[in-house]
Amino acid sequence: MMKDAVIEHGESSMAPLVAASVAAGGVGRAVSIADVFLRFLAIVATIGSAVSMGTTNETLPFFTQFIQFEAKYSDLPSFTFFVAANAVVCTYLVLSIPLSIVHIVRPRAHYSRLILVFFDAAMLALLTAGASAAAAIVYLAHKGNVRANWFAICQQFDSFCERISGSLIGSFAAMVLLIALIFLSALALARRH
Amino acid sequence: MMKDAVIEHGESSMAPLVAASVAAGGVGRAVSIADVFLRFLAIVATIGSAVSMGTTNETLPFFTQFIQFEAKYSDLPSFTFFVAANAVVCTYLVLSIPLSIVHIVRPRAHYSRLILVFFDAAMLALLTAGASAAAAIVYLAHKGNVRANWFAICQQFDSFCERISGSLIGSFAAMVLLIALIFLSALALARRH
Repeated sequence: MMKDAVIEHGESSMAPLVAASVAAGGVGRAVSIADVFLRFLAIVATIGSAVSMGTTNETLPFFTQFIQFEAKYSDLPSFTFFVAANAVVCTYLVLSIPLSIVHIVRPRAHYSRLILVFFDAAMLALLTAGASAAAAIVYLAHKGNVRANWFAICQQFDSFCERISGSLIGSFAAMVLLIALIFLSALALARRH
Repeated sequence: MMKDAVIEHGESSMAPLVAASVAAGGVGRAVSIADVFLRFLAIVATIGSAVSMGTTNETLPFFTQFIQFEAKYSDLPSFTFFVAANAVVCTYLVLSIPLSIVHIVRPRAHYSRLILVFFDAAMLALLTAGASAAAAIVYLAHKGNVRANWFAICQQFDSFCERISGSLIGSFAAMVLLIALIFLSALALARRH
């Protein structure tokens, strides 16, 4: 009778601990799988943006008529920065995939998650800087600015403007994905105990 | 003798746990104090940027000679966005200070840290977008662009250009501080156990 009571007490005090531990491991694993998935989406988005912006000069044959007004992404430094930022973030995301997969196997790892949070935040800043600088120039190309005497160039370069505007979408999607990735890593760190 | 051994065993198994617990609390508190400090620095940086950009039209009296070329931050939408982004981030940082102070008192809080990580990341994206869009236009104002037929306006508006260039510094400093804040929150979450 006494022994049973002890065992029962022992079980009842262990059970919530074990359950919490399993739940934490489950949350960590689910978060890690979502992490890998979102990283793949972000890779696709940044590649799409970089390629779409980077190939704009080749795909518009009618620009050959205007010899001095041929429009390329490399004519504007902001667009070159945009392509570079997307390429760097994409490379980082590819390199971070193995670490992210390790987290599925070991959901309780925390220092490696810390490293990912730091680099994710830095890459979020880099990608946002590239996307936003390009967006500022795209806006100027569409609207121009009367006060600064800068004319809208999209009247002449209609298809060019459409393409560069479209290529921003991938970067802005990747920004949202990176914010989600930072949050997921923090969630995994918070639930790990 | 038996009793002594049991107590000794009990102490030796408890001691590392208590030490680890105290150390984790200490790290959490130190991180929370650094968090509040960095938030104050970021508030000063974003206020400085917003005010410096926002007051540029008032402090350059020689612009009154040029009636149609008077330079204000509100002439360019990117600068208006820059001021708005800095103001929003500054407001958020002021509102987050009380929560950050709560973390000094309760270093083990984790869901509130999770909320801070998420909003810090979102504010990092907003601030970077504002700073980068303004930087792209500042670059254009300094260098112009031959291909797009946009002329550099900094030859005429020298002081204006100096001020708007200078006002970017605060935003870029605040960006670095926000990345540090995200890392610190993640560090506090990782060490909390």
